[in-house]
Amino acid sequence: MTDGPFAILGLGLIGGSLARDLAADGATVWGFDLNAQTVREAQREAIISRAIDAEFSALHEAETVVLAVPVDVAPHLLEQALPHVQRARLITDVGSTKRRIMQRAAALGLASIFVGSHPMAGDHRAGWAASRRGLFAGARVDLCRTNETGSAAWSRAQTLWQSVGAETTERDATTHDADMAFASHLPHLLSLALAGTLSSRAFARRHLGPAGKEMTRIAASSAEMWAAIFEDNSVPVIDALETCLAQLGALRGAIERHDRKAIVEAFAAANSWTERTS
Amino acid sequence: MTDGPFAILGLGLIGGSLARDLAADGATVWGFDLNAQTVREAQREAIISRAIDAEFSALHEAETVVLAVPVDVAPHLLEQALPHVQRARLITDVGSTKRRIMQRAAALGLASIFVGSHPMAGDHRAGWAASRRGLFAGARVDLCRTNETGSAAWSRAQTLWQSVGAETTERDATTHDADMAFASHLPHLLSLALAGTLSSRAFARRHLGPAGKEMTRIAASSAEMWAAIFEDNSVPVIDALETCLAQLGALRGAIERHDRKAIVEAFAAANSWTERTS
Repeated sequence: MTDGPFAILGLGLIGGSLARDLAADGATVWGFDLNAQTVREAQREAIISRAIDAEFSALHEAETVVLAVPVDVAPHLLEQALPHVQRARLITDVGSTKRRIMQRAAALGLASIFVGSHPMAGDHRAGWAASRRGLFAGARVDLCRTNETGSAAWSRAQTLWQSVGAETTERDATTHDADMAFASHLPHLLSLALAGTLSSRAFARRHLGPAGKEMTRIAASSAEMWAAIFEDNSVPVIDALETCLAQLGALRGAIERHDRKAIVEAFAAANSWTERTS
Repeated sequence: MTDGPFAILGLGLIGGSLARDLAADGATVWGFDLNAQTVREAQREAIISRAIDAEFSALHEAETVVLAVPVDVAPHLLEQALPHVQRARLITDVGSTKRRIMQRAAALGLASIFVGSHPMAGDHRAGWAASRRGLFAGARVDLCRTNETGSAAWSRAQTLWQSVGAETTERDATTHDADMAFASHLPHLLSLALAGTLSSRAFARRHLGPAGKEMTRIAASSAEMWAAIFEDNSVPVIDALETCLAQLGALRGAIERHDRKAIVEAFAAANSWTERTS
């Protein structure tokens, strides 16, 4: 990885981990975070060589700019950064929804150098303290472009993520968001509802068995980050939830009428899906 | 562990793992399984020193009898074993529901030597091939008794599970089953519904991110075993599902009306529950 300097805006789990991998690879990494303590920590650990201030003056010299903030903050940050990205050859983000940020980038005249990224990595922990080397090793990263996206920016985005061990896949932004509603946002909703259910009945998480613990782990994800995702992707998320509620309704009916065959078939279908597609 | 011989009826994940730990501890372990290949394998590995045949004649000499079969099979197996357990000082089971088997044991006149056990261990894999040493290390095992349960049988059950590293807790059978509907059976229903949802939209499990994979793992659990649990515990399971559906309904409403505050609060409450009770 010889491109750079890299400006990472937001040093949380994703931005911090990306900064660590790039720095370990010898790249020049600069960082911005609203939390001054995080910036000092990143400098002290020699992960970032320069702190980007709130005026974004340092952005002028960055070749790659990464927005690593919640999906509702990213469009505003992009707008604030706009006057300062003259030298940028690639601007990308890391959000779990892609349609809105792609639209904003186009509206700001950044279509040729903007590539939407969604690294499928990380866990429920958040912040610089949770960031670590190797987070993206073997992870899938969905990349989105438009007809106006330049091939240089596109290659640069692929190289960026591949350099930290990820596998990149091109996706249409709208399809990506619809798919993520099912594959990621719905699982988070179910975990959240389960945690709410157990909490309402005064269960302690430590007393759950392995299955209960596993199914409530991602309910401890960042509240602000996830509220922004559900707001941004509300229509596909409601669609996914409706589909799942229909499944739950069918299972409930089968249990109520002691239809053992239907339950066996549902599990058998899930077993088969797991075997065929894992 | 010097008690014995132990007769393990059912050499699946739970029964097989228990047999392995007991045998490693030097105990005399005999085994029964409907699958003749499993019995041969257990003998070849010197885990069981004697195969119990379908007439249960070997049961006459067993001091501890463990029913390690699905919850719908256990009552029938207990009835079949009844004429052969004259020397037994403890009969126990390993099922995820406890009310029905306790009632059956009492009806068969076995109340004084029957203790209900529910080891909270294992995973979605099933069968002898999945059994392993140390499965119960650190696991919680709920134990149920009645006023008629003898203290010798009770001590023997505690010693049995503690000898394989588990922590035993006394529970009332009805309370146990109601709690398990929330803590274990509901999580399995949610995972099953999620797998059904993703399968219906032709998602491949291998393409899911970490959260989607994690939330669908237990949907690959044994169909027969789980259908029996839902049938046996249907009333508490429907109660748990209703509570969760109310939570999902509230989340859906918040997403539909773009009530970001409500979503943030739901996640914040889940975060707090995780922190307080993990």
